[in-house]
This record gives sequence, C-alpha cells and structure tokens, in this order.
Amino acid sequence: MIKDFIDTNQFTKQELLDIIELSLAIKKAIKSGYYPPLMKNKTLGMIFQQSSTRTRVSFETAMSQMGGHAQYLGPGMIQLGGHETIGDTGKVLSKLVDIVMARVITHSTVEELAEACTIPVINGMSDYNHPTQEIGDLCTIVENLPQGKRLEDCKVVFVGDATQVCASLAFITTKLGMHFVQYGPKTHQLSEQHKAILEANCKLSGGSYEVTDDRNSVKGADFIYTDVWYGLYENEMPKEERVRVFHDYQVNRELMQLGNIGCKFLHCLPATRGEEVTDEVADSDSSLCWEQAGNRLTAMRGLLVYFTRCCKGHSELQIAAAKEELDRFLCCRLGK
Amino acid sequence: MIKDFIDTNQFTKQELLDIIELSLAIKKAIKSGYYPPLMKNKTLGMIFQQSSTRTRVSFETAMSQMGGHAQYLGPGMIQLGGHETIGDTGKVLSKLVDIVMARVITHSTVEELAEACTIPVINGMSDYNHPTQEIGDLCTIVENLPQGKRLEDCKVVFVGDATQVCASLAFITTKLGMHFVQYGPKTHQLSEQHKAILEANCKLSGGSYEVTDDRNSVKGADFIYTDVWYGLYENEMPKEERVRVFHDYQVNRELMQLGNIGCKFLHCLPATRGEEVTDEVADSDSSLCWEQAGNRLTAMRGLLVYFTRCCKGHSELQIAAAKEELDRFLCCRLGK
Amino acid sequence: MIKDFIDTNQFTKQELLDIIELSLAIKKAIKSGYYPPLMKNKTLGMIFQQSSTRTRVSFETAMSQMGGHAQYLGPGMIQLGGHETIGDTGKVLSKLVDIVMARVITHSTVEELAEACTIPVINGMSDYNHPTQEIGDLCTIVENLPQGKRLEDCKVVFVGDATQVCASLAFITTKLGMHFVQYGPKTHQLSEQHKAILEANCKLSGGSYEVTDDRNSVKGADFIYTDVWYGLYENEMPKEERVRVFHDYQVNRELMQLGNIGCKFLHCLPATRGEEVTDEVADSDSSLCWEQAGNRLTAMRGLLVYFTRCCKGHSELQIAAAKEELDRFLCCRLGK
Repeated sequence: MIKDFIDTNQFTKQELLDIIELSLAIKKAIKSGYYPPLMKNKTLGMIFQQSSTRTRVSFETAMSQMGGHAQYLGPGMIQLGGHETIGDTGKVLSKLVDIVMARVITHSTVEELAEACTIPVINGMSDYNHPTQEIGDLCTIVENLPQGKRLEDCKVVFVGDATQVCASLAFITTKLGMHFVQYGPKTHQLSEQHKAILEANCKLSGGSYEVTDDRNSVKGADFIYTDVWYGLYENEMPKEERVRVFHDYQVNRELMQLGNIGCKFLHCLPATRGEEVTDEVADSDSSLCWEQAGNRLTAMRGLLVYFTRCCKGHSELQIAAAKEELDRFLCCRLGK
Repeated sequence: MIKDFIDTNQFTKQELLDIIELSLAIKKAIKSGYYPPLMKNKTLGMIFQQSSTRTRVSFETAMSQMGGHAQYLGPGMIQLGGHETIGDTGKVLSKLVDIVMARVITHSTVEELAEACTIPVINGMSDYNHPTQEIGDLCTIVENLPQGKRLEDCKVVFVGDATQVCASLAFITTKLGMHFVQYGPKTHQLSEQHKAILEANCKLSGGSYEVTDDRNSVKGADFIYTDVWYGLYENEMPKEERVRVFHDYQVNRELMQLGNIGCKFLHCLPATRGEEVTDEVADSDSSLCWEQAGNRLTAMRGLLVYFTRCCKGHSELQIAAAKEELDRFLCCRLGK
Repeated sequence: MIKDFIDTNQFTKQELLDIIELSLAIKKAIKSGYYPPLMKNKTLGMIFQQSSTRTRVSFETAMSQMGGHAQYLGPGMIQLGGHETIGDTGKVLSKLVDIVMARVITHSTVEELAEACTIPVINGMSDYNHPTQEIGDLCTIVENLPQGKRLEDCKVVFVGDATQVCASLAFITTKLGMHFVQYGPKTHQLSEQHKAILEANCKLSGGSYEVTDDRNSVKGADFIYTDVWYGLYENEMPKEERVRVFHDYQVNRELMQLGNIGCKFLHCLPATRGEEVTDEVADSDSSLCWEQAGNRLTAMRGLLVYFTRCCKGHSELQIAAAKEELDRFLCCRLGK
C-alpha cells in the first residue's frame, strides 16, 4: 500500500472507490449526529505555501469533528525551504505530528516532502494536480448520478483552461471508467503527457477521453465543470487577455443547454462570476458547486481516516484489523 | 429570531439581558470547575481583516473551554474579497463550519457576510460598532453595580473620541434604560444618525443620553469609560494632532473625581497610557479594565451558545427544547 | 517556587531533574497508547515574534495530546508591543488563557511579559537562551547515556558559534554536574558573563567547563553538538564571511573521530548542511538530531504539566496534592 496521497494515478479504481465509500459513510454518521472519534489524539500538520479557503477550512474542521487537531503552518510560519531543506523539515515533522498535508507552489515540493516523511503526506494542491478535490467531486457525482446511470455511464465535460483541477478531473474520471472531455482553446489544452496518462487509465477502465475545441463535444454531458481563467496565482493572466482567449468558453445558459436534460454544473471555486460562469448558472438549481464545497469536508474526513489507519508501515494484519474496526464502528452506529 | 449578532439595536432589552445572564451563568459554572461542553463537535470560523488580541483570544478560548474548536482565518489566509466575493465565501463557509465571527474593516462586509451565510455570523468589530464588547462590558457593569442601584439607575460617561466602542456603549446603555453621556470635543461627537438611534432606544426603555463638550456632564458618573484617540487603525491620527484635539479629555485623577464616590473606570483596551488615560487611573483600585478584558471571554461563551442553540432556522419547538436543555445543564450543575 | 520558565539557572539541579523525569514519564505513557489528559480545559497562548518549526509544532501537539488547546499568536497577529505595551498584553492574556509561551527577539521582552502575567510564562527562545531546548536535549542525553556512565560522567562538546543554544547547553550541563566545552573561534566564544554563571554552576554541582579554540578539547567527547553559523535571524552573517570564520569548526567525520568511541552527534536544527555539519554526520547512525527534534515534544509536555500544576500562586498543600495526583496518574497507568 502507498503511504501518501499525492496523485490518484498511483491508486487502483477499487482503492479510490473505497476512499469515496468511506468518506460518504462518515458523512452519513455525522449527519445522523454521531461524530466518530477516528482521529482522537492525532495531529495534522497543514503546510500552506499559498492562501486557501476550502482546503484549509475543511481539513481543520475534519480533524476537530473526529476528535483530532490540525495545526495551520502558513506561508512564512515555519522554516520549510528557507533555513531548512524540505527533506529535513519532513523528518522533523514525522516526529512531531501524525500526518501532514501540503499545498505547494511546485509539485516536486510535495513529492520531496512525502519522500522524507515517515508519516502519510496528503497533497492539498500543487501546480500539477488537486487530488483531494477529485475525491470530493466524485462524492458529489455519486450523490447526484443521473437516474438509472452508473458512474461508468456518465459524461463529464470540463470547459476552459487546462488547470490542475481540469487535469485532476481527467485523471479520476478516466480511472473510474467514465467519459471525460476537455473543451478548451487549443492554446490551453491538456498536454501530451496528460493524454498518455488518460490513455493508460482508459485502457484499463474502459473509460474514454477527448481534448478538443469543438463545441459539439459538450453535447450529451451529464456534468459540466469549469474553473477560473486566470491560471496560477503566482502568474495570473491579465483580465483583458484571458477574456480574449476564453471568450467562447463561458458556462452560460446556452452552453448548459448543450448538455443532457438535468445536466449539472460543477465548479471547484473560487469563481470569477461573469467570466468562466454566469450568475444565472452558478446560482441555478442545476448548480452543485455549493454542495461540492461541502464535500471537500466529506473527502478530507475519508482521506484522513484512510491514510492514518491503513498506511504503509503497518503490517497487513494491522491494516486488516484497522479496517475491521472501522467497519464495525460505522456499521453498528449506522445500521449499515 | 435573528440569526446573526451584527448590531444590538436589532434585539430587545429582554433578549440582551438573556444573553448577559447566560454569559454570567457559564462563567459561574467554569469558575466552579465545570466546563459545559455546549460547543462539542462545533467549529467557529474566525475571520480577521485586522490584528486583534482580546477578540481573537477570547473567542478561541471560549470554543476550547466548551468542547469546540475555533479556526483562525487571518488577513490574507483565505480568499475573502480577493479571488472570491464575500457572498460566495459566506455560502462556502456555511457548508464547512457551524458559526462564523468576523472582524472587518468596513461594516457592510459583515452585513454582506451574514446575508450570504445560512449559519450564524457574529460581528467581532467593524468601523461602525463592537457588539461583543457591549455584552462583555454589561457583564462587568452588572457584576459591579453601585450598592443599591439597578442598571436603570446608573450613569455611564464615555470620555473622548466617538469611536465604534463609544457608539456601541451608547447603543446598549440606552437600550437597557441606563443614562449615557459622551463627553467629547465637538469635532468628534456621535453623529445625528447615532442620536436618532439613541433617541428611539430611550423612548422605549426610559433611559437618557447626552452628547456634549461640557465638562459638567461628567458629574455623578457611576462609570467613566474611554478609548484611544488615534481613531481607526487604517487611518490613524498623528500623535501631535490628537493630543491637540483631545487634550482636555484625558481620564486622570481630576476627571475621575467629578464622578460619584466609588466611580469605576472602564477601557476596552488597548490603552495608550499617558494619552487618554493616566497610569494612575488605569492601575488604580477603581479600574475595572482588566476585569473587563476577562469578561470578553465571558461574553463570547454566552454569545456562541446563544446563537448556535437558539438561532433562526430552528423551529420554535427546537429552540424551546434547546433552552430547556441549556437551563437543565446549568441549573443542576450549579444548583441555581 | 518560581512561576515562570525563563532561565534554567533559576532552578535547582533537582527541580530540573524532576522536569526531565516527568517529561520522560509522559512520553512513556503516550508511547504505550495512553494520552494523559493533564491539560484538559486548559489553553496555551503561543506568542511568536519569529518563525519557528520545532518549538511551535511541539507546543501545539503537546497541548492537543494532553486534552488542551494552543493558540498561535504569530508576528503581527496581536498588538503586543505595537498598540499595546508588553505589560498590558500580559495582564490581559492572564485573564484569557491559562499559560503563555513566547519566542521573542529580545530576552527582556519575555522577562517583562513574565513579570506582568499572573499565569506561568515559558521562554520559547530569546537572543539570550533557549531553555525548552535544554530540557529536550537532556531527555535525549538521558536516553542515550554511554554504557555505564551517569550524567555526571559525560563530556559534552559544543562546536562553533556561541549561539543562544550554545549558552543554554552550557547552562544546563554545568548545572547538572556534567563536563562542558565550547570549541569555537576566539571571536565567537561565550562571554565573561556566561563564564561567571558556568563557574557558579560548577562550584555547586561538581561539573566543569572550558571555552577554547584548541581542537584537542574535543577529545573524549561523549556528545558533540553544533548549531548554525549565521547567527540571529535578524542579523545574519553573510555566507562568505561565516565560512571564513568557522571553516575549521565543521562537524565532519574527522572531528567526530576525536570523540570517544560511540560519540553521538547533536544539533538543535535547522541545519545548514555542508556548513556546520556534513550530510555524512547528520545522517549517520551516530546522529541523534532527529530523536532530539522528537524530544522537543517530550520536553514541552513535561514543562506544560509542571508549570500549570505546580506553579506559584498555588499553596504548598495544593502543589503537594497536584504532585500526588500526577504521580498516581502516571504510576497506575504505567505500572511504574
């Protein structure tokens, strides 16, 4: 088993479905008023190299609700990469906390940190991908499957810039055998490296993918997803330029109507209203983006429990015992 | 019932007295060694657009002491008003935490946030008012009533600049039927809008108010209150100018002697010693300013419990049940 | 008894050994799976005037593990020394939290804070000393005593700049009757004031000290300790200059071989690899620096319990009762 949650492509379809199921089970427990103390006495170190609302708040709430504690280690608060190498900070944190999450500017930082840590490390977004977002989004999709459809029957269309959220959505949908499309301008499409991964995923899962600037690709979508146009915080595209580039890729009433009847709108947020999405769509009944934000918390709880209970370093017997305990915990309380 | 605690003028005298009574009951419980876990499994999101000592520390301690957790979301830590509109951040936080407090630069920000949130929002100070300070101050006044006097018999004189703390003190004292005076220079007195509110409050409560630069107005004060002279952090008045303007309004031995025998000194802190108050007064036996700081915590506990247990969105039956539970909780433990 | 932990020189050898023993007992309890809730309902205020990894994370984890909560009050977050005097902030915090720790730029700040606070204050490092590091380091030394040796038989050599960590190591080793050497360039040696303290300590304890640039002084070391060459964060020495000054004082294979067989390497971290220590030494089996980082947490737990349970303000009877409770707590659980 893999110790860290850096990239969903390192996991099997079944493992990812297990995490999603666990996340939804804990959500159900808490909704019924029972807060399983699965993180009791445990501490999460949260490293943020950038500001964050959803990732930070949902990790911290997840720890509290399950009896643990999260420490916010924001920009400049610790010596990571300043007076201390990433490797050394990783070794030290492994002695002082139980699990680490990191939102990093450069993907290699979180990889290096995971390599150095003897405890689990969760990628809280890098310039390459956003895997905790993937789990939350799949929770939302599972809860909102079109009538009579399985995951494998769904078409998910990402509209706009090939952001790390776009790549992440492509990764998990193709891994799970779904049908993924990026509809975006030629200058801002997923790369050949991305496509090689999607290709491999689809071969195994039976899913499909398409990267295109053809508007017809939106037809038949069950879910339409978008993200901001300005790119990475560190290097934002000026407003005028981005509107010129992405003008045709706004998710508005007309674009939504290309999807299936009952097609749902998704957005990782924050949204720049009036750019990538209109108020009308974001605030419509078809919009799942607020539910999606709530499922960030759902995902964090599942991931924290999964990676502290079942991680590398435990023997197979210990892992089996942990899984059984977890099942008993959730089952008897929920009458599952 | 009102969901949010933005402005005490939106509440009745009885509701405010209920909050004060609840605050003092929890204080008594904790003093006796019992920490009521009334915020168990609950998370408070604390948004700060400015630095803060008392408000921040007292909210965070209040949550911990009652079994909950507070998240510090400081300047630049989340995307509020930057990459995300206040409304959208409000909708998202409503999915991820249970209650929000916000210290804001502009009053409309906390109003907008409350409007967007489906969960309770507490105003942790704006450029307009400081309502959690009001509850704490009234706790202090209730605990230090002059012998034989009721709240309605007390005269409270605010000396100096018409800060948001001055306005807040005017609001709650007139709401509760007390006698309020601002003694300050003509250029820094409460506005006509303020006075219209005080007028309305007094009409209902039987209290009185006066805004004046006449030193005689201090006579007969039971409590003398002051605040800094430099104004808002964002736009501080230079030292030389403020000393010129407020020179006659320093709370010193002479000014204290204009009050009643046993007159007490109040200050919301931080103090600029040697400007609005002398060391002699701040550190005297008549000074309640340290007790007052401690009662910030008293107020936060009461407000958190009141607004999470009794807030809008709950049915009347649910609210009645919550109140009964609360009463039972506090009574049986305290033999009240 | 002294209320605050500002300087180990204010304590007796026996008191320091008590703190170390308590720290190691709690460590043993937690390792066995029992988290003693000795800080339940208690809040620690953590004031940081500088960034910190080990001190901050270990204090916060210590509080959580023992049922309490730590508040991070970072640079600019509160008004300490800005709009408010240190004394006033101390008085206020005493009303709102149970214990305070402060990492300060200037030693007098933490002294002033301790003077103003009615609750215990722990020095989390100043420009003068680093006493929580001392307790953690002694825990590490006690756990790694050379076969057949008592503390009083050990020789500890600090190599390099007379940093606050060097001074602190000198303080505690001489206090405990050990044999301390600073081997460093004449321009960067412990001062006459330092030596006067070491002199007094040794007279009482039977220990010894030496401050020298003679390489022979390293011979027979049981522990070799080093720290960075750049000095205080506020005033870092440029790389070129420090390499020129400290070139001969790198802890590398040759220097380690001057020590006793089995000589261990210590470093407070962060390390500038390739400057004061080579990778080969830092990552060798002789290196205790990672264990040492873990024992920062060990020390914090002991210190927090010791200073909240046994502090000034409690009567002798209360202190005796607290000690007995603590003993019972740890004994019956651990079968000590």
